[in-house]
Amino acid sequence: MTKQESIDGLEVGFDIPASIGMAYEDIQTPCLILDLDALERNVKKMGDYAKAHGMRHRAHGKMHKSVDVLKLQMELGGAIGVCCQKVSEAEVFARAGIQDILVSNQVREPAKIDRLARLPKISGGKIIVCVDDVANVADLSAAAQKHGTTIECFVEIDCGAGRCGVTTTEAVVEIAKAIDAAPGLKYTGIQAYQGAMQHMDDYEARKAKLDAAIAQVKDAVDALEKEGLKTELVSGGGTGSYYFESNSGVYNELQCGSYAFMDADYGRIHDKDGKRIDAGEWENALFLLTSVMSHAKPQLAVVDAGLKAQSVDSGLPFIFGRDDVKYIKCSDEHGVVEDKGGVLKVNEKLKLVPGHCDPTCNVHDWYVGVRDGKVETLWPVSARGKAY
Amino acid sequence: MTKQESIDGLEVGFDIPASIGMAYEDIQTPCLILDLDALERNVKKMGDYAKAHGMRHRAHGKMHKSVDVLKLQMELGGAIGVCCQKVSEAEVFARAGIQDILVSNQVREPAKIDRLARLPKISGGKIIVCVDDVANVADLSAAAQKHGTTIECFVEIDCGAGRCGVTTTEAVVEIAKAIDAAPGLKYTGIQAYQGAMQHMDDYEARKAKLDAAIAQVKDAVDALEKEGLKTELVSGGGTGSYYFESNSGVYNELQCGSYAFMDADYGRIHDKDGKRIDAGEWENALFLLTSVMSHAKPQLAVVDAGLKAQSVDSGLPFIFGRDDVKYIKCSDEHGVVEDKGGVLKVNEKLKLVPGHCDPTCNVHDWYVGVRDGKVETLWPVSARGKAY
Repeated sequence: MTKQESIDGLEVGFDIPASIGMAYEDIQTPCLILDLDALERNVKKMGDYAKAHGMRHRAHGKMHKSVDVLKLQMELGGAIGVCCQKVSEAEVFARAGIQDILVSNQVREPAKIDRLARLPKISGGKIIVCVDDVANVADLSAAAQKHGTTIECFVEIDCGAGRCGVTTTEAVVEIAKAIDAAPGLKYTGIQAYQGAMQHMDDYEARKAKLDAAIAQVKDAVDALEKEGLKTELVSGGGTGSYYFESNSGVYNELQCGSYAFMDADYGRIHDKDGKRIDAGEWENALFLLTSVMSHAKPQLAVVDAGLKAQSVDSGLPFIFGRDDVKYIKCSDEHGVVEDKGGVLKVNEKLKLVPGHCDPTCNVHDWYVGVRDGKVETLWPVSARGKAY
Repeated sequence: MTKQESIDGLEVGFDIPASIGMAYEDIQTPCLILDLDALERNVKKMGDYAKAHGMRHRAHGKMHKSVDVLKLQMELGGAIGVCCQKVSEAEVFARAGIQDILVSNQVREPAKIDRLARLPKISGGKIIVCVDDVANVADLSAAAQKHGTTIECFVEIDCGAGRCGVTTTEAVVEIAKAIDAAPGLKYTGIQAYQGAMQHMDDYEARKAKLDAAIAQVKDAVDALEKEGLKTELVSGGGTGSYYFESNSGVYNELQCGSYAFMDADYGRIHDKDGKRIDAGEWENALFLLTSVMSHAKPQLAVVDAGLKAQSVDSGLPFIFGRDDVKYIKCSDEHGVVEDKGGVLKVNEKLKLVPGHCDPTCNVHDWYVGVRDGKVETLWPVSARGKAY
């Protein structure tokens, strides 16, 4: 875990929302704050779970986009490396020296393939990418040979998400064989993330989807073995499913992201005992700190966090720890808070739990790490905006 | 208009999506591109309209967050300065030397008020802020005196948006008198932006809302005059209403933003002849350029622009100039495109018109300015993420 005593040369307000040692009350809003105690407990809990179940945990860096959070996941949570979705994100992690990086996505554009192939030279470690089209194999192979590197490949199976990935065992085998035969490439395993079920409310409904995914993946792995292709890694799993993959006997690597920070949308799903997962399984560690900046109407307060401080694709945020006030409307720079009792004061701070953590983190430049009412650290959102 | 021949030291892909002179086909996606011809036509058209109607145009910098786009609006479109929503945005424009800056919002937090009061020293020009609470006046006055500057003030009227602003003429007069009496402050005018009607589809429905707003503002201005308070500026108006304010006899300053870039949500509203406003009134100049990166299913293509490349608060983007394919689903890093005819090829580029331009611009670091199939300029989104 990186601790900084100061951020030299940056001006609070213009460049950064806070400074090290600053009291919680003085943090400039809106900004993202991390409850470091809660974050560390979440990270350790997932690490312990993975270890107890013999699973590798490859933390999903696309969620936090932060080298510092990843290092915490590796040091405290035993994560073996990172996965991310874009070459430009992988470049950030490679430059930070992360030794095991998976781009859990397709890379097709020639310039991006070239950049991907250079990554092992930057990090000194390994790079893995997903493939769902045999036509991609020759391009990846050519780039690896050009740079004198090895690109490891996962064949991506669409096990229900309905996005990238092939759907038949025949297609998996065809692509894996092409990879195996291509100079500069290595067939390493299977990417099978069921993204569509992660946010389904009901545990049994999620289980049914994952059972189907596991059967589909097992069929492919068995077929590959018959062809003499060893599947070293089967990777997938998220905050709404990791226990299914961990007990599948097929997967050996998890890719969880949101568990570390949590958000309103994930918080609403239920565990096997029918309990919301933010009521025990994971703690809210990420908050969008906002201040009341207008209260001209007695029952409506206006806060300073709107659409440019968060993504509302998965619904509005809720106000943490408060039942008396409610965030009811969001425009570009404003949030409207229903304040029936007229209890809020101008400049009062509220902690919002964002609807969806990933795209919310992506609009901010800094995480303000808070403990015991003080700013303990400032972590840059290192891969913010890295989308190419 | 700022033209750059090169962006020294930045690496295409990692830092920037393109380089000056690059062919359109080589731009790294996803990124924002500006059709410079269309942008210049929009900017000139609004400038000509304002001039013909004797209106000042204070371009809304919160939309594009770009010093370069603002300079185009000032040089080609005759804009008199800028308005923005945050002190940190105003700091960006002040550092760029913009002489007339309005923070069209409340500033209440002590550290922000202090930063606001320093701005005239940075820009050498004037700063205006909105006030909707008499309790704010003493704080603004103290900060202006501390820094030896003048803060000009608009009293904000809520003329229908339901956010900040006072709703009665009595409250307007009370606040304006307090400002007028406070050392370091100057009562300059009225902020009255009807945000809630801008996106109403029907012209007559918008007109009814604006007629009510105009009457409300006129009542306040008349009452202020009786109190001996001269209202120098009455400011408001957006892309869905500027013709109403311009013909009101009450307003003398416009604050339009989206007209310059346009987006899908604004494009859908209708003008007085029942025509969509993106079919003649304003051109789409802003596009989210994206590439097909997976086409493993014959009728579904996956593109590389998802929630981290745009805001979907006002709906999904549409694909410009294409009726044969449709953007139907958006996740963090992916867009799913329905391709019933199977016509799309991997790496094919598509131009998306974002649902909502303001929060979409706020997730990007660069505008890639394109003309005649080539990258002509790269403009930083100078105030991106400036939310405090």
